[in-house]
Amino acid sequence: ARSYIITLLPGDGIGPEVVAVAKDVLSAAGAKEGVELRFREMLMGGAALDAVGVPLPDETLAAAQASDAILLGAIGGYKWDSNEKHLKPETGLLNIRAGLGVFANLRPATVLPQLVDASTLKKEVAEGVDIMVVRELTGGIYFGQPRGFGTNDMGEEIGFNTEIYSVSEIDRIARVAFEVARKRGGKLCSVDKANVLEASMLWRKRVTAIASEFPDVELSHMYVDNASMQLVRNPKQFDTIVTNNIFGDILSDEASMITGSIGMLPSASVGESGPGLFEPIHGSAPDIAGQDKANPLATILSAAMLLKYGLGAETAAKRIETAVTETLDNGFRTGDIYSPGTTLVGCKRMGEEVLKAL
Amino acid sequence: ARSYIITLLPGDGIGPEVVAVAKDVLSAAGAKEGVELRFREMLMGGAALDAVGVPLPDETLAAAQASDAILLGAIGGYKWDSNEKHLKPETGLLNIRAGLGVFANLRPATVLPQLVDASTLKKEVAEGVDIMVVRELTGGIYFGQPRGFGTNDMGEEIGFNTEIYSVSEIDRIARVAFEVARKRGGKLCSVDKANVLEASMLWRKRVTAIASEFPDVELSHMYVDNASMQLVRNPKQFDTIVTNNIFGDILSDEASMITGSIGMLPSASVGESGPGLFEPIHGSAPDIAGQDKANPLATILSAAMLLKYGLGAETAAKRIETAVTETLDNGFRTGDIYSPGTTLVGCKRMGEEVLKAL
Ligand SMILES: CC(C)[C@H](C(=O)O)[C@@H](O)C(=O)O
Ligand SMILES: CC(C)[C@H](C(=O)O)[C@@H](O)C(=O)O
Repeated sequence: ARSYIITLLPGDGIGPEVVAVAKDVLSAAGAKEGVELRFREMLMGGAALDAVGVPLPDETLAAAQASDAILLGAIGGYKWDSNEKHLKPETGLLNIRAGLGVFANLRPATVLPQLVDASTLKKEVAEGVDIMVVRELTGGIYFGQPRGFGTNDMGEEIGFNTEIYSVSEIDRIARVAFEVARKRGGKLCSVDKANVLEASMLWRKRVTAIASEFPDVELSHMYVDNASMQLVRNPKQFDTIVTNNIFGDILSDEASMITGSIGMLPSASVGESGPGLFEPIHGSAPDIAGQDKANPLATILSAAMLLKYGLGAETAAKRIETAVTETLDNGFRTGDIYSPGTTLVGCKRMGEEVLKAL
Repeated sequence: ARSYIITLLPGDGIGPEVVAVAKDVLSAAGAKEGVELRFREMLMGGAALDAVGVPLPDETLAAAQASDAILLGAIGGYKWDSNEKHLKPETGLLNIRAGLGVFANLRPATVLPQLVDASTLKKEVAEGVDIMVVRELTGGIYFGQPRGFGTNDMGEEIGFNTEIYSVSEIDRIARVAFEVARKRGGKLCSVDKANVLEASMLWRKRVTAIASEFPDVELSHMYVDNASMQLVRNPKQFDTIVTNNIFGDILSDEASMITGSIGMLPSASVGESGPGLFEPIHGSAPDIAGQDKANPLATILSAAMLLKYGLGAETAAKRIETAVTETLDNGFRTGDIYSPGTTLVGCKRMGEEVLKAL
């Protein structure tokens, strides 16, 4: 039997609840396919700040790097919101992304037929939406130097950041996106602001160059302002989207809200080699933490992505996806996706139902 | 009678058609209130590139600066899309904004009761939406130095831009936004990415500081990724939004698409003093140019903003707004907002109906 070590980073708020449930599902699905998983839980985010004073302890990063894949719950909360930058839970997240080199963030935004009514978009606009946003995750304005505070010629305080991309950074994310698009609908839309920004002009030039390696994928380009409109106007026009770190942050969240059920959406962050990082796209929801109300399905589906993209265990991943579909078909819903006529359940019970369906 | 000089910049695509119609409406509304308007038409955008080889001729900027207000149609088109940066129509637009110092861009996104069905959002989500986005327009990553192309330590090509804000740049846009919010619903939401970017941290700090001058306005802060979700989830939660140049570009377009009728939406760009720039938010729509199909209402409503924010002629502005409402109530629609049971008209005829309603 294949054996892997999984780092669990429960984090803050509802993180521990959803990770506990997803861990059981992950174990069970792996076991059915002869994939043995061993888990090691580590501190991160606000939990780490409270326990040891930093948002990403060295041991956590080291354990993550030494493992085969990482499952993260959620980080952050009001409590740490006004912390200085190096003591913010978010900084821990940015540092683990950089530390693992997971430059490609895959964020599916899929409208499930069972949940089409959850979307604020009209049914005919929302149904069938199935978008994959491939976001560059370890470059651009999130990490660009120089950055900081200073004084300008007039003696005034300034704050500044650098949006910067190199050819190799663009080429590698473009290749991931073309590969993803090839396995999906064969259409890739690259989003930039090449009518204004030099960083985007280079982005567009390189994505266009890499396209020649993927003659079977149809490439288009769109400005980011137009993309944010088109996601609302007609989201079905998109198959796979590739974009930079900050535009990806904005557009992937917009796309996920179009589905109406962000409690359902997983994500995968992967690099050239080394372990990938898998996490639900929702936040830590401190207001419902510890009440067994959280929807664990996004984390469970992140566990499926972990099996598929992280360990290459596609059949085990498929098992989880099918079990989730079945659980929804059986009418079980957490509060965030509840509608009259379905059965309202808590976080744990939802996990049990998925386990049964496995 | 008060007398003003208006610079007309018809620009490209449908620009000349919509500006011609809006000019007549502007004249007529002014005349009724004793406001005499004289017009001077100048070249800009692709039209200027074709005629004299630059997107913003010196005479155009000089004429605009010497006038009391500027009405712009639209610029750009496929024809000039692959031009070098300094020969792009868009560069002309950025240069006139900078040249006029119009740092505050006001973009209303209002769902009119007559057009609520045009939105892709469910009726109960869309109806009553009335948002004003106040976008910083002459700073940030659009203009920040250093910018350009270069080579990194590994000898690779790079493209880079600088996101940068100074205290005075933030303070002045914040004051405009608070003033606007005060005259509207009294709620201001400042959008940034202060959990990651230093430029946003300074933004948040200064907006918070300026808030003490406006105790009657309720200030909140939101991260840009969350804002892009919340606009889809529940746009009615927003009254006035203030944000930087690039986030404003993305979010104002998203907000406008939420109304479903971007052919209806005007914008105003104003500075500390000097003439303001007024333009519809839609593009040049080259595919329908010259066919008398364009919706002139966004430009007509931009003319109303010109009267109100540019010349302080509020009653003349109000006349135009009322006439537009009446024209819609009378059932007249251009193709972009047509629905069964209404009367389909062209650009010119729509203008005539608004003139009648005046
Ligand atoms: C928490 C924050 C730093 C993070 C980001 O901006 O990348 C989050 O919004 C995300 O998208 O994962
Ligand atoms: C054409 C482009 C340069 C411009 C911008 O990005 O500001 C446009 O999108 C706008 O919003 O007015």
